[in-house]
Parts: sequence; structure tokens; C-alpha cells
Amino acid sequence: MGDSLGKIFTITSFGESHGNCVGIIIDGCPAGLPITTEDIQEEVDKRRPGAGVAATARVEEDKVEILSGIFNGRTTGAPVCLLIRNKDVDSSEYKKMRFRPRPGHADYTAFIKYGGFNDFRGGGRFSGRITASFVMAGAVAKKLLSLIGIEVLAHTVAIGYIRARFKVLNEIRENVKNNLLKCADPIATEEMTRLIEQAKEAGDSVGGIIESIALNVPVGLGEPVFDTLEGDLAKALFAIPAVKGVEFGSGSRATEKKGSENNDPFTIKDGKIVTLTNNAGGILGGISNGMPIVVRVAVKPTPSIAKSQETVDMKKMRSASLVIKGRHDACIVPRAVPVVESMVAVTLCDFAIRAGLIPRVIK
Amino acid sequence: MGDSLGKIFTITSFGESHGNCVGIIIDGCPAGLPITTEDIQEEVDKRRPGAGVAATARVEEDKVEILSGIFNGRTTGAPVCLLIRNKDVDSSEYKKMRFRPRPGHADYTAFIKYGGFNDFRGGGRFSGRITASFVMAGAVAKKLLSLIGIEVLAHTVAIGYIRARFKVLNEIRENVKNNLLKCADPIATEEMTRLIEQAKEAGDSVGGIIESIALNVPVGLGEPVFDTLEGDLAKALFAIPAVKGVEFGSGSRATEKKGSENNDPFTIKDGKIVTLTNNAGGILGGISNGMPIVVRVAVKPTPSIAKSQETVDMKKMRSASLVIKGRHDACIVPRAVPVVESMVAVTLCDFAIRAGLIPRVIK
Amino acid sequence: MGDSLGKIFTITSFGESHGNCVGIIIDGCPAGLPITTEDIQEEVDKRRPGAGVAATARVEEDKVEILSGIFNGRTTGAPVCLLIRNKDVDSSEYKKMRFRPRPGHADYTAFIKYGGFNDFRGGGRFSGRITASFVMAGAVAKKLLSLIGIEVLAHTVAIGYIRARFKVLNEIRENVKNNLLKCADPIATEEMTRLIEQAKEAGDSVGGIIESIALNVPVGLGEPVFDTLEGDLAKALFAIPAVKGVEFGSGSRATEKKGSENNDPFTIKDGKIVTLTNNAGGILGGISNGMPIVVRVAVKPTPSIAKSQETVDMKKMRSASLVIKGRHDACIVPRAVPVVESMVAVTLCDFAIRAGLIPRVIK
Amino acid sequence: MGDSLGKIFTITSFGESHGNCVGIIIDGCPAGLPITTEDIQEEVDKRRPGAGVAATARVEEDKVEILSGIFNGRTTGAPVCLLIRNKDVDSSEYKKMRFRPRPGHADYTAFIKYGGFNDFRGGGRFSGRITASFVMAGAVAKKLLSLIGIEVLAHTVAIGYIRARFKVLNEIRENVKNNLLKCADPIATEEMTRLIEQAKEAGDSVGGIIESIALNVPVGLGEPVFDTLEGDLAKALFAIPAVKGVEFGSGSRATEKKGSENNDPFTIKDGKIVTLTNNAGGILGGISNGMPIVVRVAVKPTPSIAKSQETVDMKKMRSASLVIKGRHDACIVPRAVPVVESMVAVTLCDFAIRAGLIPRVIK
Repeated sequence: MGDSLGKIFTITSFGESHGNCVGIIIDGCPAGLPITTEDIQEEVDKRRPGAGVAATARVEEDKVEILSGIFNGRTTGAPVCLLIRNKDVDSSEYKKMRFRPRPGHADYTAFIKYGGFNDFRGGGRFSGRITASFVMAGAVAKKLLSLIGIEVLAHTVAIGYIRARFKVLNEIRENVKNNLLKCADPIATEEMTRLIEQAKEAGDSVGGIIESIALNVPVGLGEPVFDTLEGDLAKALFAIPAVKGVEFGSGSRATEKKGSENNDPFTIKDGKIVTLTNNAGGILGGISNGMPIVVRVAVKPTPSIAKSQETVDMKKMRSASLVIKGRHDACIVPRAVPVVESMVAVTLCDFAIRAGLIPRVIK
Repeated sequence: MGDSLGKIFTITSFGESHGNCVGIIIDGCPAGLPITTEDIQEEVDKRRPGAGVAATARVEEDKVEILSGIFNGRTTGAPVCLLIRNKDVDSSEYKKMRFRPRPGHADYTAFIKYGGFNDFRGGGRFSGRITASFVMAGAVAKKLLSLIGIEVLAHTVAIGYIRARFKVLNEIRENVKNNLLKCADPIATEEMTRLIEQAKEAGDSVGGIIESIALNVPVGLGEPVFDTLEGDLAKALFAIPAVKGVEFGSGSRATEKKGSENNDPFTIKDGKIVTLTNNAGGILGGISNGMPIVVRVAVKPTPSIAKSQETVDMKKMRSASLVIKGRHDACIVPRAVPVVESMVAVTLCDFAIRAGLIPRVIK
Repeated sequence: MGDSLGKIFTITSFGESHGNCVGIIIDGCPAGLPITTEDIQEEVDKRRPGAGVAATARVEEDKVEILSGIFNGRTTGAPVCLLIRNKDVDSSEYKKMRFRPRPGHADYTAFIKYGGFNDFRGGGRFSGRITASFVMAGAVAKKLLSLIGIEVLAHTVAIGYIRARFKVLNEIRENVKNNLLKCADPIATEEMTRLIEQAKEAGDSVGGIIESIALNVPVGLGEPVFDTLEGDLAKALFAIPAVKGVEFGSGSRATEKKGSENNDPFTIKDGKIVTLTNNAGGILGGISNGMPIVVRVAVKPTPSIAKSQETVDMKKMRSASLVIKGRHDACIVPRAVPVVESMVAVTLCDFAIRAGLIPRVIK
Repeated sequence: MGDSLGKIFTITSFGESHGNCVGIIIDGCPAGLPITTEDIQEEVDKRRPGAGVAATARVEEDKVEILSGIFNGRTTGAPVCLLIRNKDVDSSEYKKMRFRPRPGHADYTAFIKYGGFNDFRGGGRFSGRITASFVMAGAVAKKLLSLIGIEVLAHTVAIGYIRARFKVLNEIRENVKNNLLKCADPIATEEMTRLIEQAKEAGDSVGGIIESIALNVPVGLGEPVFDTLEGDLAKALFAIPAVKGVEFGSGSRATEKKGSENNDPFTIKDGKIVTLTNNAGGILGGISNGMPIVVRVAVKPTPSIAKSQETVDMKKMRSASLVIKGRHDACIVPRAVPVVESMVAVTLCDFAIRAGLIPRVIK
């Protein structure tokens, strides 16, 4: 239980890291949306390890398969089932260390919760690999959102203590494309790269911060008091492994500001009501206010490190040390960027359909 | 829509700031729980404005009424409906400024979303007053959690840029009780008080940070991949007006740490598996790991300030200035502390019932 | 748990037969709907016991109170909470026979399920009185449906073995209004009346069949494969105490027909596709087909009878006899007619909003 | 939307009749349940066309594939994804008659609802083939229910106007196994067979009635007032194509009985409270009462018939005649028997888990 998200545009995730596949079902997708395997593949490829420091040792082709819900190049209104087969799987290391939970991972909690029956290979359901299925759903959501002019971006704004400097939207759009760290600031990228390299050499890892921006979101998305735009975005984003914080607009910095500084004054621009600043991150009272939605997620440093760590043997109930062999990324932040983008898109899409902004049939 | 929260232990909020009442329905509450009006009143009273700088001008008796679901002093298994009547209501100011949305408030977004039909008086559904109903639900949830030994605390850890120094659990438990700012650090409290006074004098406001800690949470709460403990706690917490950020454990500070620093090594203590540190905030892979759950929320400075602000006249579609008369708190953080505690309790309670830890009938 | 119904237009029921009140929350009601206490009262009054054989001994004023969600005569988009206070309450008999479950009632199952903590007075949550709250929700739903031309009717088609003869729509509309049994056939009404009188005299009771017809339902309501129109209507109707069967169109008679007799041929009439017959009851593949929705519910004879019955003493675990004093109707079918109408309206309303046919703001 | 069913034990259906596959995801399945492809295959095979009159022309191997959620022969607690590939597909006829909706089928409603984008081949989502996925879910549910002693049966009780005579449980269990019509009465079976043969020869079809019985269901399943056992069973059963009526216990016959005849007197047997009769079909107040659950569904005659039928051309908007070639069964009742059994099992399983009767981890 707990593997579905969204009220009308509902995604259901399934699959494991080292099982047959990872997949997603999208229920409630309007009929008539033109979408091809290639459209989805393109988004999934953004999540694949590129070259450079943030590359992973596991190389999967990640080929998207459409199982249902798309016919003659368009969605049919029926559940869309999308699949990626697992191929480059080596579970030998996981079997060896099965009873030695990796610090910072779900090994221990999953073992207890599921009575030891969970598929532990490669982290099973708790692997970052599951997020490939989120990206497939995001591809469909982004296509739907584009119909009403909504654009969702995401970029790396910090790796470790290195912060990217502020960039305007066009710089973000352009610079992120070919940046291996998905960062809009080329100078910070160099420093970030060094930091990752150092961590890697030390058998260690670093985290970072990803920012997502949604543009042209009309006023009115969000269903308070509980289904707020912030709340549902946060819930969706916390499904991404390693995310430990979510904030909107001025976020935690708002706590150090005065009300007079943090309030966004209203004004009229081109006949429309806008705010002069966007400390609210585009959300007031849990409802979009027409300004860009701005959300930042804190990604903890990858828990898989090469350094020896202290753990326990759950079977023998005694202390043990652990050296994780196999694959690990010194920094997963860049690969998480399209995942953050996808979860924002999926959530906005559900709200847009709930608000009646995206019709049930696309003509 | 969007006014219900929780899958099995489900709360449904209703009521408005200046309407007849604010209320809550708790569906899925196990039968047999001994609970009285007094139990609930006691929690609600914690949210009432106290003396001191954080006091509000609106003085409500906030008398709890049980409408259904409790019989002979025990829950019956039927929906529990709890009510607080509104009494000290003065809507005159709101009527005057109806078309001038207050910056930082939901006036504008609600006006557009609900086509101008929303009850704007006192902020209507978007008033902090709605959280009185959250506290009523929290009172019931805390009683249920106490049956399995879970304790939920909350305290102020920052007001503006003033941070409380670290305190151990017993200090938090003891100090918060009689502290007007619900802060465990008496020295910081003095500085915080000065900061609030200064803001008040300047017709301005300040925000802050609230931390909640849940103790004795067994391993296994949370239903990944989407119904993670972090995700559902965050969603519940973002329902509190003015919350703009939520983080767990080392949270955003984790982003500047190395993996080897942020990972919590496992060890065995008193025959149980524990972690040596708690950077994870008690949650691994979206599932509780037996360590204290630690969550912090960023509360923006109260948007209601006495200073003149820029806004627009939505009817005449032109710029306008706004001076908010009526009531406003220079700092709502202390009053939000029991609300944060309640939302954490409500969420944990739902997960505990889903996990089968709290039985359907309390004997 | 289990006290909410509907996905977007969601009703949550609360209250007990002999507690403070029965009430309903309607969440997801579009903003701007003009509705008054009187509108709702009018519907609730239809459920009140009239004169004649189907009258009940309990005489409640059943005065509707609006607690939230309606402001200046229109819905605000916030949850609408509606309440009826209980007044004419006499629980003495129920206390006496508390451990002797009435055959055909929920006394036994509720006692076991809720560990004896359920409010047993007057049947508590299982009383027909709860349906007064359904009718309040139905009043709102019917107003919303009327905006898109949908009309929902219901009438008694059988009492015991007496069947009403076929009547055309206008006869149903007209005749039911002033018919004490809500039956469109005046001649059958006489026989039905006699049957009820005989049952009453014998300290016994009779059941019957209610038919509901929804007109002008556009093609496309229903969300198969699971949220079919039949399935969700049936679920809603089985919430009415004493309903033990639900069928659509030719229903169980279809089982004795040939495919060639039961299929409804399509044709074109006034430029629209219609069917020549309506054995499908307006639903094909779980989706409305534009023809009238026709659903019939089987209502068992009222389990409360004056005759002495065999039961057990749950405390002493031995056989016991039971004579139910207090109030009981020899036939509740007529009073259930507006309830059936309401549940059909509530369900259609949810689907119409899901399909985007009723906007989120009524202008 | 609408393709998920169940609150904790949640099934999500996907796939089409002539697409790649039909499949089901079971979320919320407890971990540790031993289950193999063979276990599921065995149930699916019951739904395959056998020999005899009820055989279908489409012969599919219907090979079950496990995509996720089962590891080392046991469920892992993760979503279980089960798949059957479509192989014996011939869509040529469907393409020809695309704009001529088959009477009694969902062709017309789906065409309008999904704007013509629905996969019409073989009825797409509305094909009886989708129920193969229900049976896969049923196989898992039945295994779980067997752990707490619950057994679910189903059998044919009528074909057309031919009714099977009453049989005791053991006869039902034994006789149904090798009966081509899944009927416990061998004599009625002969007459039913003749009726089907006659219909087939006439290019026509017949319907029937299926009864399902669930044994050893403990007292307390069901969550009134809306999530009643009757309501949720009915909703699940109406998802089966061709089901037009659902009734419990004495059902529609109850409407002709007196209260004194229909009430089931309580008594004590072997130290347990039972009822002397079972007119309630094992359900009182929407909650199981410990007696066998008895539910009957009315199955309309298969709409696909060989006879020429009247329909319309939706493109040219004029009358048209239709002769359905391709495959059709003269009676689908026998093949629907395991589907009914499955939907009852799936629903009971969800309630049993909600009630805490089946643990989250099977040891």
C-alpha cells in the first residue's frame, strides 16, 4: 500500500531495482493526448548517468515499453502502463551483505517492516532506480501541462556547500541542457565538479539542493485546507529517495525576515494582478497565485559510500563493519534533477485536471 | 474538496473564521478510547493566546463541544465530530477591504479560485483559526498514540534570527510548559521576546522555526513509495497557514555534509538496533527506524502587519494601499507550536492504525 | 472509517439516532450555488413521517441548520456542514434490551465490531434516522444537477407482493407528490395501504421496491472499470438501511431474456443517437448512454416488529425472547423514497463534477 | 481514472482486449505470502473457455507472468504486478464496424466519453477479457483469506429461466468442479445446456444468475455507513461486464415477505451466537454477522449475438444494420463464475486487512 499518488491523475508505481522491471501506471490520463515511446524515452534519458563525475557504474539502456493505454499514438483514456526492463543487474554483493544494513539506506527499516521478505537486491523498492518510473509519468504530465502553457524546469542550485549564483530563466533553460551537473552556473559547476571528485577519491559522497520552477501556472491550483499545493508537492517530492527537506519561495530564509520584507506586494502589470516579489514561491493559502511556483529540495549525500562503515549483523545481533562494493554515485543530485521536475509536473497535472483546466478529452 | 486527511484515521475539517464555528470530524477512530471534553479542551487551550508579546487581540473562549461519536466517555467507533463556536467576531474591517487583498494572505487566490464567493471575513477558511480544529483532532490522536507509548512534543527553536540552543528532552518537556514562546531555552526566549516587541512596535512581524519530536515510534511506520512518513508528515504540516518549509533530521544541513558524516551508523544498545546519531530524523526510506522522529517547520512572518502596504483594488483593477486594522499577532510561532504537535500526532496515528499497531477496539 | 462517499463531491456522515444530532459534510461542492436552509428543509420534510399507515411514532421537527460553507445565500467552495438536532428521544427501552440484539438489526454486529462501545440507543449509527443526513446532501446535489438539466425522481413500485402498474413520467411526477406511499399508481396504493394495515395489526411489517429514474443524464458519466455508474450507485444505495438488492434496467428479468430481446437497438431521433428500448437502464459498460438511468432497490420488511421474537442474551449467552416496544413503522418504504432519490443524486453529482460537466464555480 | 479498487488491499487494472496484455497491480498485499505463478495460473485457467456449449472461439493460452512484488516464492510487501499477454488477436472485424456500435455493448458510450480515442478493438477496456486480471487478483486474495479460514465459492444458479435446485455446500464444492456450466445441479445442467444450444443455433444468447458464498467470515467485516459490506461487494461485482443486478440473502424475495418471516432469529449453537435462518445473507447493518455471506448477481444475456441487429453509423449519423462476426459466446455465465468468486474474495480481503484480521506480515 502507499504506491499510488494523485486523486484524478493517479500514478501507481511498481517494480524493483534488481527484479524484472520498474514501471508505472497512469490512471486518469485524458484521452487523445498524442504521445510516443520516443517522447517518454527522451525524458527517461535525462535521468540516465551521463559522462563526468556524476556518472554511475550501472549502465542500463532503460528502454521504455508501452504496455497499455496508448493506441494509434494517442492516449485512449484507459490506464497507461509504462515499463522499463532491468538488464544490467548484479545482485551478488547484496546477497552477501543481506543482514548488514547499509547506514542511511532503507535496508534496516524495510527488513523489519516486511519481516525480511522484501526484495533486498539493489535496495529493491527503495532504490533510486524506482524514480525512472516517476520520470515516465512526468513525461506524460509535462505533455499535458504544455497544452495549457505550463512549463516545469529544474536545476541544481547547490552541491555540498557550493551554491550556484542566481540565473534568469533563459540561462537556466539553456545552460542546464548540456551541463553534466544540471547547473545553470558554469563557474559554480567547476567548483562543484571538484567537490564531487574529492568526495569520490575519498570514498565519500556529497549532497545538494535542487530547485524546480513551474511557469505560467494559472491562479487557483490547490485544494486547501489539506490538499494544498505546497503539501501535495512536498509529499510527491519526499517520495524521491534522499530528499530530506522541501521549501517554497523564500522558504527557511523567510523565518529571518520581517513581515514587511517577506510579504509580496500586489500590483497590476499588463492588466493582470501580479506580485512585485515572489517570496511566496507562487503559492498563497495553498493555492497558486499566478507567479512562478518555486520549490527547493534538500538532497542528502548519497548514503552508498566506499568507506568502511559501522553497522550491525541483524541475524547475529552484533556489531559489524561494512564496505559497500558494487556501484555508487558520489553525488546523485544531477540525476535527481529530472525526477524533481517530474514529480512537480505530475502533481501540477493532477491539480490542473481537478480544477477542470485540462479537459478529459484532448482534441 | 481537499478537506480530508488520512487514510484510515481520517480527519475532515470544516468551518470559517467568522462563521458559526470551526470543527473537525475524525473518522476511523478506534472504539473504546476514553476521552472527555476536558481532555480536548486542555489541548485547545494551549493554542489560545497567552499573555505576553505573542498574545492576540482576538479573545475567544474556544469551548469544545462534542457533537457525535463519544458515548459514556468513550469513543464508539462512529465519526467523532468536535466543534468550537465562534463568538468574538468583528467582520467590519474585512468588509471594507474586501477587494483589496492583503499581501501574503490567501485573499487574492481564494477570491479567484472561488469566484468571489468565498467567505472572506477574517480570512474565512484560510484563517489560523481553522487550526483550532486541527488541535482537537490532535488531542484524540495523542491519546491514541499514548496507548502504544508514543509521545509527541513540539517547541520553538527560532524566532527571526534568534536560535534556541540545544536542549535535552527533559528540558524541552519542562521548559516549554510555562514559556510564553514555547521555547525550551530561557535565555534565547528573552532575546526572542525583544525581537517580537521591536517588530510589534514597528508595526511589523517575525517568523520562526518549530521543531517537533516524536518519541518511542516503533520501526515500520510509513508506506513507501508515495505514502512515506516524511511525505505525509510534510503534507499535514503544510496545511498550517504560514508554513513554507519542512525538513527532517539534519535536513538542509545534510546537503553540506559528506555521506560519511550524515549516515547514521547502526549499533546495538540494550539488545536493540539503534543508530549512533540521528541525522535521518528517525526515518529511513520513508519508514520510521525506531529513533526519535525529528521534523522542523519554517514559519514565515505573520503577513498581517500594521504597516501600510501596497496592493490592488481587484474591482477597479488599480493600485491601492492597505492598512490592516483589526487584530494581528506580531509573531504566531508560539501559537503554532501545539498545531505542529497535533498534525504530527494525527499523521503518526493514521500510520500506526494502518500498520495494525493500534487496535480497532481499545479495551 | 467508511463514513465518506464520493471522490470529488464527497459527503461525510456523522451523528447518531439518540445522540445530539445527525449531520453531513459536503466537501467539493462548487462555489456560488444559491441554496438556502429552506431548500434543504423542503427535501428533508419529504422524509418525515406523513399521515396514514406509513407514519412513524417518532415525531421530530427535523430542523435543518447550516454550520458552515454557505455565506450570503451561496456556497463558498468550503465544506458545507449541515445539521439536524435530535429532540424527540426516548432511549429507555433500548437500555433495557441492550444485550438482546433485535433480529434483522445491526445490534449484534455493531456490538461485536465496536466491542460494545457503540451507541446502541435507537440503533445509533445504524438507525434509519441517519438517512436524514443523506437527504440534506441530496438537496444540494439535486440543485447542482438541475443546473445541467438532470432531474432525479423516485417512487414506490411495490409494497410486499403488490406491484404498481407502469406509469409514464408525468404521472410519476404528479401522483407521487401527494401520495402517502409515494406510489404513482392510485389503485395499487389502496391495496398497498391495506397490506400495510394488515401487517401493522398483526404486529408485523412489509417491505417493497423503490425505483429511481434520472433524466437528461448526458452520455459519459461513470469511470470504468471499477468506478462504474452501476457500481457507485449501488454502493451509495446499499448505505440505506434495509436495502438488500439493487438492479438496473431490466435487471434480474434480463437473465430470462434472449440477447436479441435484451439488447437495446440504436437509432437516431431528432439528430441524436438513442436506443429504442431501455433494458440497459441508461448504462452501457458502466457509462451513462443518454437514456434515463433506471435503478430499483429491494427494501426488506422493517425488522422492528411488535411480535415477540427469538433472540439471545449476549451477556448471559443464552436464548431469550424479545418484544420490541418503542417506535416502529410497519413499512418504511415510502420514507425511504426521498433517500433513494438523494443517494442517486449525490452519486450522479460526483460523476458530473468528475467529468467536468458541473464547473467548480457557479456563476 | 476509476481503475483502482479497495482501500488497503488495492487492485489497479490495466490492459485491453486486443492490446499487448491485460494486467493487475495488487498494492497493500501483506509480505510473506507464499504464492507461485502456478497458484495464480490455476485460478486463471478456471476462467478459460472449456469444452461444451459455453466455449468461446477465442483460444488464449492466458499465461500468467509475475512482473514484480514476489521474490523467492513469497510476496515482498511491494506492489504485485501480474500480466497476461494477448496472443490470439484478430481485430479486423472491429475495424470494419468501428462506427457501428454493437447494441448492449460499451462501443457507443466509450466512443463518446473518450472522444473516439478509445481502443475499440475487441471492446478494448470493456471486454470480458479484462476480467482475467480480476481473477489473478482473486487468486492472491483467496490465498490470503485461506490463512484465516475464509473460503469463497461461486456457482451458476440459473441460465435463462432454468433454475438450479438447492444444493448443500459439499455438493456445490464437488459438483461445480467438473461441470461445464459450473452448476451444482446436474439435472438442471442438462436443461441449461439445451437452452444454450438452442440460443446458439438461433444466433442468440442467454444470461443467468451466479451465486457466491463466503464461509467462515468472522463477525465484524464492513465499515458502515458508506463502506458497507453489501455496498463494496456490489461495487466490485458491477465491474464485471454484463452484471445488472446484485442482491444479498433473501434479496428481492425479501420484499414479499413479512418482517417476522425475513428476520433471522438469533440462537446459541456450540457456544456461539448464530442465526437460525440466513435471510440477511450474512450481513446486518453492512457488517458480517458470522453466517455465510450469500450474494447473487444477475448476468444479462451476452450482447454479442450472430443475429442481424439495428444500430447506427456514428459517422454518417444514420441507421445501419449490424451483423457481428468474429467470436461470441452464447452464454458467458459459466466463465463469469470464477470472476464473481474473485471479486468477492478481493473485497473480503480488503475488509479483513482493514479490520486487522490479516496481519501485514505473514509468518
